[in-house]
Amino acid sequence: MGNRKIVSEAVIKRLPRYLRHLCELQRNDILRVSSKELSQRMGLTASQIRQDLSCFGEFGQQGYGYNIDFLFDSINKILGTDKGFNVIIIGAGNMGRAIANSESIQLRGFAIAGIFDINEELIGSEINGIKVLDVNTIHEFIKTTKVDIAALTIPREQTKAVAKKMYEYGIKGLWNFSATDLTLPKDAVVENVHLSDSIMVLGYKINNN
Amino acid sequence: MGNRKIVSEAVIKRLPRYLRHLCELQRNDILRVSSKELSQRMGLTASQIRQDLSCFGEFGQQGYGYNIDFLFDSINKILGTDKGFNVIIIGAGNMGRAIANSESIQLRGFAIAGIFDINEELIGSEINGIKVLDVNTIHEFIKTTKVDIAALTIPREQTKAVAKKMYEYGIKGLWNFSATDLTLPKDAVVENVHLSDSIMVLGYKINNN
Repeated sequence: MGNRKIVSEAVIKRLPRYLRHLCELQRNDILRVSSKELSQRMGLTASQIRQDLSCFGEFGQQGYGYNIDFLFDSINKILGTDKGFNVIIIGAGNMGRAIANSESIQLRGFAIAGIFDINEELIGSEINGIKVLDVNTIHEFIKTTKVDIAALTIPREQTKAVAKKMYEYGIKGLWNFSATDLTLPKDAVVENVHLSDSIMVLGYKINNN
Repeated sequence: MGNRKIVSEAVIKRLPRYLRHLCELQRNDILRVSSKELSQRMGLTASQIRQDLSCFGEFGQQGYGYNIDFLFDSINKILGTDKGFNVIIIGAGNMGRAIANSESIQLRGFAIAGIFDINEELIGSEINGIKVLDVNTIHEFIKTTKVDIAALTIPREQTKAVAKKMYEYGIKGLWNFSATDLTLPKDAVVENVHLSDSIMVLGYKINNN
Protein backbone atom coordinates (compact mmCIF):
# COMPACT_ATOMS: atom_id res chain seq x y z
CA MET A 1 0.00 0.00 0.00
CA GLY A 2 3.06 2.29 -0.09
CA ASN A 3 3.77 4.87 2.53
CA ARG A 4 0.45 6.14 3.82
CA LYS A 5 1.98 8.91 5.86
CA ILE A 6 2.64 11.15 2.92
CA VAL A 7 -0.92 11.01 1.61
CA SER A 8 -2.43 14.47 1.68
CA GLU A 9 -5.84 15.31 3.10
CA ALA A 10 -6.95 16.38 -0.39
CA VAL A 11 -6.25 12.91 -1.79
CA ILE A 12 -8.03 11.19 1.10
CA LYS A 13 -11.06 13.40 0.54
CA ARG A 14 -11.19 12.38 -3.11
CA LEU A 15 -11.12 8.62 -2.42
CA PRO A 16 -14.83 8.33 -1.53
CA ARG A 17 -15.58 10.11 -4.81
CA TYR A 18 -13.57 7.51 -6.68
CA LEU A 19 -15.63 4.82 -4.99
CA ARG A 20 -18.89 6.48 -6.05
CA HIS A 21 -17.81 6.72 -9.67
CA LEU A 22 -16.39 3.19 -9.73
CA CYS A 23 -19.65 1.98 -8.22
CA GLU A 24 -21.61 3.64 -11.03
CA LEU A 25 -19.36 1.92 -13.58
CA GLN A 26 -19.91 -1.41 -11.83
CA ARG A 27 -23.66 -0.88 -12.02
CA ASN A 28 -23.25 -0.55 -15.77
CA ASP A 29 -21.26 -3.81 -15.89
CA ILE A 30 -18.09 -2.05 -17.03
CA LEU A 31 -14.92 -3.93 -16.10
CA ARG A 32 -12.06 -1.59 -16.99
CA VAL A 33 -11.62 2.16 -17.14
CA SER A 34 -8.73 4.29 -18.37
CA SER A 35 -7.49 7.21 -16.34
CA LYS A 36 -8.71 9.42 -19.20
CA GLU A 37 -12.29 8.11 -19.04
CA LEU A 38 -12.32 8.28 -15.26
CA SER A 39 -10.95 11.82 -15.35
CA GLN A 40 -13.71 12.95 -17.70
CA ARG A 41 -16.39 11.47 -15.46
CA MET A 42 -14.90 13.06 -12.36
CA GLY A 43 -13.85 16.42 -13.76
CA LEU A 44 -10.19 15.84 -12.86
CA THR A 45 -7.19 15.55 -15.14
CA ALA A 46 -5.93 12.09 -16.06
CA SER A 47 -2.55 12.88 -14.56
CA GLN A 48 -4.23 13.93 -11.31
CA ILE A 49 -5.91 10.54 -11.15
CA ARG A 50 -2.70 8.66 -11.87
CA GLN A 51 -0.97 10.74 -9.21
CA ASP A 52 -3.74 10.21 -6.61
CA LEU A 53 -3.78 6.47 -7.04
CA SER A 54 -0.01 6.12 -7.17
CA CYS A 55 0.08 7.29 -3.53
CA PHE A 56 -1.17 3.85 -2.57
CA GLY A 57 0.60 1.56 -5.00
CA GLU A 58 0.29 0.37 -8.58
CA PHE A 59 -3.26 -0.15 -9.75
CA GLY A 60 -3.21 0.52 -13.47
CA GLN A 61 -1.43 -1.04 -16.38
CA GLN A 62 -0.18 1.26 -19.08
CA GLY A 63 -2.58 1.06 -22.03
CA TYR A 64 -5.03 -1.24 -20.27
CA GLY A 65 -6.48 1.12 -17.69
CA TYR A 66 -7.71 0.12 -14.28
CA ASN A 67 -9.55 -3.06 -13.35
CA ILE A 68 -12.62 -1.52 -11.73
CA ASP A 69 -13.36 -4.25 -9.19
CA PHE A 70 -9.75 -4.40 -8.10
CA LEU A 71 -9.48 -0.61 -7.80
CA PHE A 72 -12.80 -0.48 -5.91
CA ASP A 73 -11.66 -3.14 -3.44
CA SER A 74 -8.27 -1.50 -3.04
CA ILE A 75 -9.73 1.90 -2.21
CA ASN A 76 -12.08 0.24 0.28
CA LYS A 77 -9.05 -1.32 1.94
CA ILE A 78 -7.23 2.02 2.05
CA LEU A 79 -10.27 3.65 3.63
CA GLY A 80 -10.73 0.74 6.02
CA THR A 81 -14.34 0.31 4.93
CA ASP A 82 -13.66 -3.34 4.07
CA LYS A 83 -13.39 -4.08 7.79
CA GLY A 84 -16.35 -1.91 8.72
CA PHE A 85 -17.07 0.61 11.45
CA ASN A 86 -19.67 0.69 14.18
CA VAL A 87 -21.52 3.97 14.59
CA ILE A 88 -23.83 5.24 17.28
CA ILE A 89 -26.09 8.22 16.68
CA ILE A 90 -26.72 10.59 19.56
CA GLY A 91 -29.84 12.58 18.85
CA ALA A 92 -32.85 10.96 17.17
CA GLY A 93 -34.06 14.16 15.52
CA ASN A 94 -34.26 14.79 11.80
CA MET A 95 -30.51 14.65 11.20
CA GLY A 96 -30.10 11.52 13.30
CA ARG A 97 -32.92 9.92 11.34
CA ALA A 98 -31.38 10.98 8.04
CA ILE A 99 -28.14 9.23 9.00
CA ALA A 100 -29.89 6.12 10.30
CA ASN A 101 -31.82 5.88 7.04
CA SER A 102 -28.88 6.63 4.74
CA GLU A 103 -28.33 3.69 2.42
CA SER A 104 -25.06 5.03 1.09
CA ILE A 105 -23.48 5.14 4.54
CA GLN A 106 -24.42 1.58 5.37
CA LEU A 107 -23.45 0.35 1.92
CA ARG A 108 -19.95 1.67 2.63
CA GLY A 109 -19.52 -0.44 5.74
CA PHE A 110 -20.74 1.89 8.48
CA ALA A 111 -23.21 -0.07 10.62
CA ILE A 112 -25.57 1.81 12.90
CA ALA A 113 -25.07 0.03 16.22
CA GLY A 114 -27.37 2.22 18.29
CA ILE A 115 -29.42 5.42 18.42
CA PHE A 116 -29.75 7.43 21.61
CA ASP A 117 -31.92 10.30 22.73
CA ILE A 118 -32.90 12.12 25.88
CA ASN A 119 -36.54 12.60 24.86
CA GLU A 120 -38.76 10.02 26.56
CA GLU A 121 -41.26 10.20 23.73
CA LEU A 122 -38.62 8.97 21.29
CA ILE A 123 -37.02 6.33 23.53
CA GLY A 124 -38.34 2.92 22.56
CA SER A 125 -39.41 3.99 19.06
CA GLU A 126 -37.68 2.49 16.04
CA ILE A 127 -35.76 4.17 13.23
CA ASN A 128 -34.95 1.98 10.27
CA GLY A 129 -35.39 -1.08 12.50
CA ILE A 130 -33.13 0.23 15.28
CA LYS A 131 -34.60 0.98 18.68
CA VAL A 132 -33.96 4.41 20.17
CA LEU A 133 -32.30 4.00 23.58
CA ASP A 134 -32.03 6.28 26.59
CA VAL A 135 -28.95 8.47 26.27
CA ASN A 136 -28.10 7.64 29.89
CA THR A 137 -27.46 4.03 28.93
CA ILE A 138 -24.64 4.86 26.46
CA HIS A 139 -21.84 4.03 28.87
CA GLU A 140 -23.31 0.60 29.57
CA PHE A 141 -23.90 0.07 25.87
CA ILE A 142 -20.29 0.83 24.99
CA LYS A 143 -19.00 -1.72 27.48
CA THR A 144 -20.56 -4.54 25.47
CA THR A 145 -20.51 -3.11 21.93
CA LYS A 146 -17.49 -1.86 20.02
CA VAL A 147 -18.20 1.69 18.90
CA ASP A 148 -15.83 3.45 16.49
CA ILE A 149 -17.82 6.58 15.76
CA ALA A 150 -20.38 8.72 17.57
CA ALA A 151 -22.49 10.92 15.31
CA LEU A 152 -23.50 13.99 17.30
CA THR A 153 -26.82 15.33 16.06
CA ILE A 154 -27.83 17.22 19.16
CA PRO A 155 -28.35 20.93 19.86
CA ARG A 156 -25.22 23.04 19.60
CA GLU A 157 -25.19 24.03 23.27
CA GLN A 158 -24.83 20.40 24.36
CA THR A 159 -22.41 19.18 21.73
CA LYS A 160 -19.09 20.06 23.39
CA ALA A 161 -19.98 18.37 26.67
CA VAL A 162 -21.33 15.24 24.99
CA ALA A 163 -18.29 15.02 22.70
CA LYS A 164 -15.99 15.20 25.72
CA LYS A 165 -17.95 12.44 27.44
CA MET A 166 -17.84 10.18 24.38
CA TYR A 167 -14.10 10.70 24.19
CA GLU A 168 -13.77 9.77 27.87
CA TYR A 169 -15.80 6.64 27.17
CA GLY A 170 -13.17 5.68 24.60
CA ILE A 171 -14.90 6.65 21.35
CA LYS A 172 -12.18 8.28 19.28
CA GLY A 173 -14.18 9.14 16.16
CA LEU A 174 -16.66 12.01 16.42
CA TRP A 175 -18.91 13.03 13.56
CA ASN A 176 -20.08 16.48 14.51
CA PHE A 177 -23.21 18.02 12.96
CA SER A 178 -23.45 21.06 15.23
CA ALA A 179 -22.42 24.55 14.17
CA THR A 180 -19.53 24.56 16.62
CA ASP A 181 -15.92 23.40 16.62
CA LEU A 182 -14.84 20.71 19.06
CA THR A 183 -11.58 20.87 20.99
CA LEU A 184 -10.44 17.41 22.04
CA PRO A 185 -7.13 15.65 22.73
CA LYS A 186 -5.00 14.76 19.73
CA ASP A 187 -5.94 11.09 19.59
CA ALA A 188 -9.58 12.06 18.96
CA VAL A 189 -10.63 12.41 15.33
CA VAL A 190 -13.34 14.89 14.48
CA GLU A 191 -15.06 15.24 11.15
CA ASN A 192 -17.55 18.07 10.82
CA VAL A 193 -20.66 18.44 8.72
CA HIS A 194 -21.40 22.13 9.14
CA LEU A 195 -24.54 22.76 7.11
CA SER A 196 -24.49 26.51 7.68
CA ASP A 197 -20.84 26.74 6.57
CA SER A 198 -21.65 24.78 3.43
CA ILE A 199 -24.61 26.95 2.41
CA MET A 200 -22.61 30.13 3.09
CA VAL A 201 -19.88 28.97 0.72
CA LEU A 202 -22.60 28.25 -1.84
CA GLY A 203 -24.03 31.74 -1.34
CA TYR A 204 -20.61 33.32 -1.83
CA LYS A 205 -20.04 31.38 -5.04
CA ILE A 206 -23.45 32.36 -6.41
CA ASN A 207 -22.55 36.03 -5.91
CA ASN A 208 -19.02 35.67 -7.27
CA ASN A 209 -19.35 33.06 -10.02
CA MET B 1 -13.14 44.90 -0.27
CA GLY B 2 -9.95 44.44 -2.29
CA ASN B 3 -9.72 42.14 -5.26
CA ARG B 4 -12.07 39.24 -4.65
CA LYS B 5 -10.89 37.28 -7.63
CA ILE B 6 -7.69 36.12 -6.03
CA VAL B 7 -9.36 34.74 -2.92
CA SER B 8 -8.74 31.02 -2.68
CA GLU B 9 -11.41 28.42 -2.03
CA ALA B 10 -9.65 27.54 1.23
CA VAL B 11 -10.06 31.10 2.53
CA ILE B 12 -13.72 31.23 1.50
CA LYS B 13 -14.34 27.96 3.31
CA ARG B 14 -12.86 29.37 6.50
CA LEU B 15 -15.01 32.53 6.52
CA PRO B 16 -18.11 30.83 7.96
CA ARG B 17 -15.90 29.48 10.74
CA TYR B 18 -14.75 33.01 11.53
CA LEU B 19 -18.38 34.04 11.79
CA ARG B 20 -19.14 31.22 14.21
CA HIS B 21 -16.25 32.13 16.48
CA LEU B 22 -16.98 35.85 16.31
CA CYS B 23 -20.59 35.07 17.15
CA GLU B 24 -19.49 33.16 20.27
CA LEU B 25 -17.37 36.14 21.32
CA GLN B 26 -20.35 38.46 20.76
CA ARG B 27 -22.48 36.21 22.96
CA ASN B 28 -19.90 36.74 25.71
CA ASP B 29 -20.10 40.53 25.21
CA ILE B 30 -16.49 40.74 24.04
CA LEU B 31 -15.83 43.73 21.79
CA ARG B 32 -12.28 43.24 20.49
CA VAL B 33 -10.09 40.25 19.74
CA SER B 34 -6.44 40.02 18.74
CA SER B 35 -5.35 37.76 15.91
CA LYS B 36 -3.47 35.74 18.54
CA GLU B 37 -6.58 35.13 20.67
CA LEU B 38 -8.67 34.35 17.61
CA SER B 39 -6.00 31.98 16.32
CA GLN B 40 -5.96 30.06 19.60
CA ARG B 41 -9.73 29.67 19.55
CA MET B 42 -9.73 28.52 15.94
CA GLY B 43 -6.62 26.35 15.93
CA LEU B 44 -4.97 28.47 13.22
CA THR B 45 -1.81 30.55 13.40
CA ALA B 46 -2.12 34.28 14.00
CA SER B 47 -0.34 35.00 10.74
CA GLN B 48 -2.80 32.75 8.89
CA ILE B 49 -5.65 34.82 10.29
CA ARG B 50 -4.02 38.11 9.34
CA GLN B 51 -3.37 36.72 5.88
CA ASP B 52 -6.94 35.42 5.44
CA LEU B 53 -8.54 38.68 6.43
CA SER B 54 -6.12 40.82 4.45
CA CYS B 55 -7.55 39.26 1.27
CA PHE B 56 -10.60 41.46 1.78
CA GLY B 57 -9.14 44.67 3.10
CA GLU B 58 -7.87 46.13 6.36
CA PHE B 59 -9.83 45.06 9.41
CA GLY B 60 -7.37 45.10 12.27
CA GLN B 61 -5.28 47.78 13.88
CA GLN B 62 -1.77 46.85 14.98
CA GLY B 63 -1.81 46.34 18.75
CA TYR B 64 -5.56 46.84 19.10
CA GLY B 65 -6.85 43.70 17.43
CA TYR B 66 -10.09 43.42 15.57
CA ASN B 67 -13.38 45.11 16.38
CA ILE B 68 -15.61 42.05 16.56
CA ASP B 69 -18.87 43.63 15.39
CA PHE B 70 -17.14 45.31 12.48
CA LEU B 71 -15.33 42.14 11.45
CA PHE B 72 -18.53 40.12 11.78
CA ASP B 73 -20.47 42.55 9.59
CA SER B 74 -17.64 42.72 7.08
CA ILE B 75 -17.46 38.94 6.68
CA ASN B 76 -21.23 38.83 6.28
CA LYS B 77 -20.90 41.37 3.49
CA ILE B 78 -18.16 39.36 1.80
CA LEU B 79 -20.28 36.22 1.98
CA GLY B 80 -23.37 38.11 0.80
CA THR B 81 -25.35 36.91 3.80
CA ASP B 82 -26.19 40.52 4.74
CA LYS B 83 -28.47 40.67 1.70
CA GLY B 84 -29.90 37.22 2.28
CA PHE B 85 -30.73 34.26 0.07
CA ASN B 86 -33.99 32.48 -0.67
CA VAL B 87 -33.86 28.70 -0.49
CA ILE B 88 -36.32 26.04 -1.54
CA ILE B 89 -36.04 22.49 -0.27
CA ILE B 90 -36.94 19.68 -2.63
CA GLY B 91 -37.66 16.57 -0.62
CA ALA B 92 -39.48 16.78 2.72
CA GLY B 93 -37.80 13.72 4.22
CA ASN B 94 -35.50 13.70 7.21
CA MET B 95 -32.74 15.72 5.59
CA GLY B 96 -35.17 18.27 4.19
CA ARG B 97 -36.71 18.61 7.64
CA ALA B 98 -33.30 18.98 9.24
CA ILE B 99 -32.54 21.90 6.91
CA ALA B 100 -35.94 23.50 7.38
CA ASN B 101 -35.48 23.32 11.14
CA SER B 102 -31.86 24.48 11.20
CA GLU B 103 -31.59 27.64 13.23
CA SER B 104 -28.00 28.29 12.22
CA ILE B 105 -28.87 28.40 8.52
CA GLN B 106 -31.69 30.87 8.99
CA LEU B 107 -29.68 32.96 11.42
CA ARG B 108 -27.11 33.41 8.64
CA GLY B 109 -29.62 34.91 6.23
CA PHE B 110 -30.87 31.87 4.34
CA ALA B 111 -34.67 32.01 4.34
CA ILE B 112 -36.63 28.86 3.53
CA ALA B 113 -39.05 30.10 0.87
CA GLY B 114 -40.70 26.76 0.14
CA ILE B 115 -40.58 23.00 0.68
CA PHE B 116 -41.65 20.58 -2.03
CA ASP B 117 -42.35 16.88 -2.17
CA ILE B 118 -43.92 14.32 -4.46
CA ASN B 119 -45.53 12.32 -1.64
CA GLU B 120 -49.22 13.19 -1.31
CA GLU B 121 -49.18 12.29 2.35
CA LEU B 122 -46.63 15.02 3.02
CA ILE B 123 -48.10 17.69 0.75
CA GLY B 124 -50.10 20.15 2.85
CA SER B 125 -48.29 19.30 6.09
CA GLU B 126 -46.14 21.92 7.78
CA ILE B 127 -42.46 21.87 8.67
CA ASN B 128 -41.29 24.64 10.96
CA GLY B 129 -44.34 26.67 9.92
CA ILE B 130 -43.78 26.19 6.19
CA LYS B 131 -46.34 24.27 4.15
CA VAL B 132 -45.08 21.39 2.01
CA LEU B 133 -46.14 21.98 -1.60
CA ASP B 134 -46.57 19.66 -4.55
CA VAL B 135 -43.28 19.32 -6.42
CA ASN B 136 -45.18 19.84 -9.68
CA THR B 137 -45.93 23.42 -8.66
CA ILE B 138 -42.27 24.47 -8.42
CA HIS B 139 -42.17 26.14 -11.81
CA GLU B 140 -45.22 28.28 -10.98
CA PHE B 141 -43.75 29.04 -7.56
CA ILE B 142 -40.48 30.26 -9.04
CA LYS B 143 -42.27 32.68 -11.35
CA THR B 144 -43.53 34.68 -8.38
CA THR B 145 -40.79 34.06 -5.80
CA LYS B 146 -37.09 34.77 -6.18
CA VAL B 147 -35.20 31.55 -5.46
CA ASP B 148 -31.42 31.57 -5.17
CA ILE B 149 -30.79 28.05 -3.97
CA ALA B 150 -32.50 24.67 -4.33
CA ALA B 151 -31.55 22.13 -1.67
CA LEU B 152 -31.87 18.67 -3.20
CA THR B 153 -32.73 16.13 -0.53
CA ILE B 154 -34.26 13.50 -2.77
CA PRO B 155 -33.21 9.95 -3.66
CA ARG B 156 -29.95 9.70 -5.57
CA GLU B 157 -31.55 8.24 -8.71
CA GLN B 158 -33.68 11.37 -9.20
CA THR B 159 -31.16 14.01 -8.25
CA LYS B 160 -29.47 14.58 -11.62
CA ALA B 161 -32.75 15.08 -13.48
CA VAL B 162 -34.21 17.38 -10.84
CA ALA B 163 -30.98 19.43 -10.68
CA LYS B 164 -31.09 19.89 -14.47
CA LYS B 165 -34.70 21.02 -14.29
CA MET B 166 -33.97 23.53 -11.49
CA TYR B 167 -31.12 24.92 -13.56
CA GLU B 168 -33.44 25.27 -16.55
CA TYR B 169 -35.92 27.10 -14.33
CA GLY B 170 -33.17 29.61 -13.58
CA ILE B 171 -32.02 28.48 -10.14
CA LYS B 172 -28.24 28.72 -10.30
CA GLY B 173 -27.38 27.54 -6.79
CA LEU B 174 -27.78 23.83 -6.07
CA TRP B 175 -27.16 22.35 -2.66
CA ASN B 176 -26.80 18.65 -3.32
CA PHE B 177 -27.27 16.08 -0.55
CA SER B 178 -27.24 12.97 -2.74
CA ALA B 179 -24.26 10.64 -3.05
CA THR B 180 -23.74 11.62 -6.66
CA ASP B 181 -21.88 14.36 -8.54
CA LEU B 182 -23.86 16.80 -10.67
CA THR B 183 -22.71 17.92 -14.10
CA LEU B 184 -24.22 21.26 -15.01
CA PRO B 185 -23.27 24.27 -17.18
CA LYS B 186 -20.58 26.55 -15.83
CA ASP B 187 -22.91 29.27 -14.56
CA ALA B 188 -24.47 26.78 -12.15
CA VAL B 189 -22.95 26.58 -8.68
CA VAL B 190 -23.07 23.28 -6.87
CA GLU B 191 -22.15 22.69 -3.26
CA ASN B 192 -22.26 19.11 -2.06
CA VAL B 193 -22.95 17.63 1.35
CA HIS B 194 -21.89 14.04 0.82
CA LEU B 195 -22.52 12.32 4.14
CA SER B 196 -21.01 9.03 3.04
CA ASP B 197 -17.83 10.77 1.82
CA SER B 198 -17.55 12.58 5.13
CA ILE B 199 -17.88 9.46 7.27
CA MET B 200 -15.39 7.58 5.06
CA VAL B 201 -12.79 10.29 5.61
CA LEU B 202 -13.48 10.01 9.34
CA GLY B 203 -13.04 6.24 9.18
CA TYR B 204 -9.72 6.62 7.37
CA LYS B 205 -8.46 9.09 9.94
CA ILE B 206 -9.46 6.82 12.82
CA ASN B 207 -7.38 4.02 11.31
CA ASN B 208 -4.43 6.28 10.46
CA ASN B 209 -4.36 8.80 13.28
